[in-house]
Amino acid sequence: MVDLAGIFPPLVTPFKNEELALDMLKNNVQRYQTFALRGYVVLGSNGERVMLNEKESLQVIETVAENAGENKLVIFGAGEESVQGTVRFLKNAARVGGQAALLITPHYYRSQMKPEVIFNFYTQVAEASPVPIVIYNVPANTGLEVPLEVVTRLAEHPNIIGMKDSSGNLTYQQSILGRNLPNFQLLTGTANTLMSSLVVGAVGGILALANILPAQCIQIYEWVKAGEFEKARHLQLQIVPLNKMITAIFGIGGLKFAMNHLGLQGGETRSPLPAPDEPARKNILGELQRLGITSV
Amino acid sequence: MVDLAGIFPPLVTPFKNEELALDMLKNNVQRYQTFALRGYVVLGSNGERVMLNEKESLQVIETVAENAGENKLVIFGAGEESVQGTVRFLKNAARVGGQAALLITPHYYRSQMKPEVIFNFYTQVAEASPVPIVIYNVPANTGLEVPLEVVTRLAEHPNIIGMKDSSGNLTYQQSILGRNLPNFQLLTGTANTLMSSLVVGAVGGILALANILPAQCIQIYEWVKAGEFEKARHLQLQIVPLNKMITAIFGIGGLKFAMNHLGLQGGETRSPLPAPDEPARKNILGELQRLGITSV
Amino acid sequence: MVDLAGIFPPLVTPFKNEELALDMLKNNVQRYQTFALRGYVVLGSNGERVMLNEKESLQVIETVAENAGENKLVIFGAGEESVQGTVRFLKNAARVGGQAALLITPHYYRSQMKPEVIFNFYTQVAEASPVPIVIYNVPANTGLEVPLEVVTRLAEHPNIIGMKDSSGNLTYQQSILGRNLPNFQLLTGTANTLMSSLVVGAVGGILALANILPAQCIQIYEWVKAGEFEKARHLQLQIVPLNKMITAIFGIGGLKFAMNHLGLQGGETRSPLPAPDEPARKNILGELQRLGITSV
Amino acid sequence: MVDLAGIFPPLVTPFKNEELALDMLKNNVQRYQTFALRGYVVLGSNGERVMLNEKESLQVIETVAENAGENKLVIFGAGEESVQGTVRFLKNAARVGGQAALLITPHYYRSQMKPEVIFNFYTQVAEASPVPIVIYNVPANTGLEVPLEVVTRLAEHPNIIGMKDSSGNLTYQQSILGRNLPNFQLLTGTANTLMSSLVVGAVGGILALANILPAQCIQIYEWVKAGEFEKARHLQLQIVPLNKMITAIFGIGGLKFAMNHLGLQGGETRSPLPAPDEPARKNILGELQRLGITSV
Repeated sequence: MVDLAGIFPPLVTPFKNEELALDMLKNNVQRYQTFALRGYVVLGSNGERVMLNEKESLQVIETVAENAGENKLVIFGAGEESVQGTVRFLKNAARVGGQAALLITPHYYRSQMKPEVIFNFYTQVAEASPVPIVIYNVPANTGLEVPLEVVTRLAEHPNIIGMKDSSGNLTYQQSILGRNLPNFQLLTGTANTLMSSLVVGAVGGILALANILPAQCIQIYEWVKAGEFEKARHLQLQIVPLNKMITAIFGIGGLKFAMNHLGLQGGETRSPLPAPDEPARKNILGELQRLGITSV
Repeated sequence: MVDLAGIFPPLVTPFKNEELALDMLKNNVQRYQTFALRGYVVLGSNGERVMLNEKESLQVIETVAENAGENKLVIFGAGEESVQGTVRFLKNAARVGGQAALLITPHYYRSQMKPEVIFNFYTQVAEASPVPIVIYNVPANTGLEVPLEVVTRLAEHPNIIGMKDSSGNLTYQQSILGRNLPNFQLLTGTANTLMSSLVVGAVGGILALANILPAQCIQIYEWVKAGEFEKARHLQLQIVPLNKMITAIFGIGGLKFAMNHLGLQGGETRSPLPAPDEPARKNILGELQRLGITSV
Repeated sequence: MVDLAGIFPPLVTPFKNEELALDMLKNNVQRYQTFALRGYVVLGSNGERVMLNEKESLQVIETVAENAGENKLVIFGAGEESVQGTVRFLKNAARVGGQAALLITPHYYRSQMKPEVIFNFYTQVAEASPVPIVIYNVPANTGLEVPLEVVTRLAEHPNIIGMKDSSGNLTYQQSILGRNLPNFQLLTGTANTLMSSLVVGAVGGILALANILPAQCIQIYEWVKAGEFEKARHLQLQIVPLNKMITAIFGIGGLKFAMNHLGLQGGETRSPLPAPDEPARKNILGELQRLGITSV
Repeated sequence: MVDLAGIFPPLVTPFKNEELALDMLKNNVQRYQTFALRGYVVLGSNGERVMLNEKESLQVIETVAENAGENKLVIFGAGEESVQGTVRFLKNAARVGGQAALLITPHYYRSQMKPEVIFNFYTQVAEASPVPIVIYNVPANTGLEVPLEVVTRLAEHPNIIGMKDSSGNLTYQQSILGRNLPNFQLLTGTANTLMSSLVVGAVGGILALANILPAQCIQIYEWVKAGEFEKARHLQLQIVPLNKMITAIFGIGGLKFAMNHLGLQGGETRSPLPAPDEPARKNILGELQRLGITSV
């Protein structure tokens, strides 16, 4: 059983003049090695997976796998609209070092994605996958939510080990946790609910914010585990505004700008994803200053 | 300064053959007196405020105010679409014993409810109100959310003392709490997030579920305050399914059915609000049984 | 059988310093008498029905009924959340001259408004109503749509004569029209689809725009009836931008401003409904000028 | 200037045991040659573009281009999330016979798709594209709408020749048509609004329904052009229920089932897209029977 407990940054994929910059990615991973992270997610939503072709995707996984260091789990984002394409990619990804797949729901044909269709998709992929599957629920991108009954049934599959929920919906998360699904681990997908999700039973988080504030994300995680709730609460409330900026408000361009400012190598986004404009940059810098963060 | 810390049931308004049944309401309040509730909310969404005419509304407030007992705060739901109508009602409500107003946002002209319009509405009403105001954010009913900047500005008004947030959105709640607004108290409006909201700084809750599980709601509140998080978590996860049934799924008809089953006097809803059908009743009874709840 | 074929303006309710200005309303109706309108709608969404108390509402109906002139149908907006309150109002409205009721769906408890509940509401009200009922579907305000199957079943009721659909959704309208419901007339509720709706079989429209451009709305109606499609198309495309301004964009405040500018007496809105700001006023005046409209 | 006036079926892509069945596709195109269609759209939403890899996509374009016959325009669906990937595909598609690109908006990072970002995407792709571009607005799949101002600005680009709008929103379509954009042609993307859209100025349609009712779709088109509105209206109202079934309700699986029933070769969908279940099949057959359609 793969243990998912802890904090993962969903690594950004740096570009330079529209081209993949693997050296920058490698550099970032090496910088993160000093932190007590559980591992890395590559090719998640923050990793611009949908901007890459398959060859590039595999290079990204391979680069991170080679530099991750021991005991760091390398989860890779996946999920084409078809079962066939998804399985093919999973096999290739496993070959270059991917250890578990974060599998998004198909969603282009949203109105056709009935519960049974979603169940079938995950089951067929899990049957064929060489690596364990983590369900990825991200309504802001997909426009749909994996239904609770589907999660419950999928949790019984031996090759489905957990779920990343980026909805920020505590009712949804608690509905899953309350079922006490054996061998099924829940990760929050947003730092906005890091403390709340941990308190009700999530085992960790895959957090965009952990790209720039790894120490603080880990600190909240450890304080909650240690029962230091007042400390955790104080820090948690402090990070929400910055997290909103680098996710919902300014997006990946904002996150990469913050990384570059803090001495990491976020690089650029691939077009048409925008870079933050001057007021956006000011807002992000102001928030970093308020938090006293000057480097990673 | 009125202290809002604690648990409030938003009392249902019992009907019998479409007519107000004040004796049943009185009976319920008397039953609740044995619990360490902070007070009562009358004429909230669960109180079918929108089904009553003004005369009936005032009778409901008066009945609860007369039977509330000492030290129980009586908050009443209010909020017409116009400032004028709202103020008139607030004055009448205060005269019959209402101690604070839970004030919903105007929402019929949703597309016109720009931040400045919402700000003006609350400010104008607060200026004229004989009782303190609690902002009521309930997107499921109104289709809109009180913007954060508006909350921040309204919090400075001396006659606006807090907010009930029924969105269940922890990001929103933390964004408010992180601003450390002085003399501004946040109540969660759903038992789904009772523990999470308390953990990040809410002072209590106005909870439909407290109509039927007052002891358990109070227990979670007290465990969180005492730092007994593991106990709180266990109970919190248990109550979510029942809470969803008597709110989002089966609504007030479901809540009243559960009350009647547990020895309270929920009575009937007013048409066209439906009573639960046979499968719904079975679901509710099954959930009560699973929780071992047989009476209040 | 009441004939609904033609154009109706949903009359605004003028206020002056927050108070009802019935003289201004009377003046407007008298001005409209020179146009070949089918009748008037009072207390619709544009009539700020939700801003009025019952006494004021009845005064508005009475004022219009007394000044409507022969052969003009006076439809009044209605629809409380409860059957009881709705029926009581309908009886009072009929007494002061209201000839048909435009009946909005209950919507505060949106998640409970299942098809059967909506069906029951309309049926119970229609049974008790002294005047014929027009179903009012207005998702932008209510957040819900009257389901097609419910419309089909309601159309069989002898006291339900038609529907105003403000969704602008031609698929929905054609789905109703394709069923050839006998004695059931469809009115479009937005000038945005006036021509399209007429072309597929609507009998007319209740149009905010008809408050300021009655001649043009009637002209499109008559051209479509006469088979002058090219002329109708040209005018129809011209009016859409102005119609969007005085409905979705600037709302009733915008509409009243335009009326005042054109020599009618729109008066003011009741708080908190906003008046248009300077840029909004410029936009409206620019659009009126582009259309060459200087008075009504 | 490429003329888009007329009816296009967005061809389905037949699969057999999950594999591309190009012979079936070829067969369908040959069957369609007897109809006065303006051309074909391949790899649209109905063509399961997102289920294919690039090699398969190019085979599909090539197969249709080789069999389309003279004077039939071959438009191909395109639009990756990145400019780079999109341009590369367009060049390859043009090489195998694609004559114009139907270009969907990037949408995975919905919250980042601000007007300027969408404008930049289309402009950069149009600059580099060897074939003319048709903007594809399909909110049901993308969760976003191309803003009117963006359409207006894009319409000035010499390599952007028009738009397919699948929103069914007549207000949106008329807002575009009312601007009289030179050299910019609007196609409706749903048979639900075929007549309405044509009446207000659209030049034709790309219609899933034209896969199974090509004669009827062409008939409506020609009747509207000939001013035979009453005939057009009658047929238009008849087709809406079937069109809803093979689009919003049962999706591509439903459409393929209907094709197979009518003697075409729809084949199967690729997993996880579902085939219609027994009740769905009955509904579709019932609707075909009601319309008297037994073959294509």
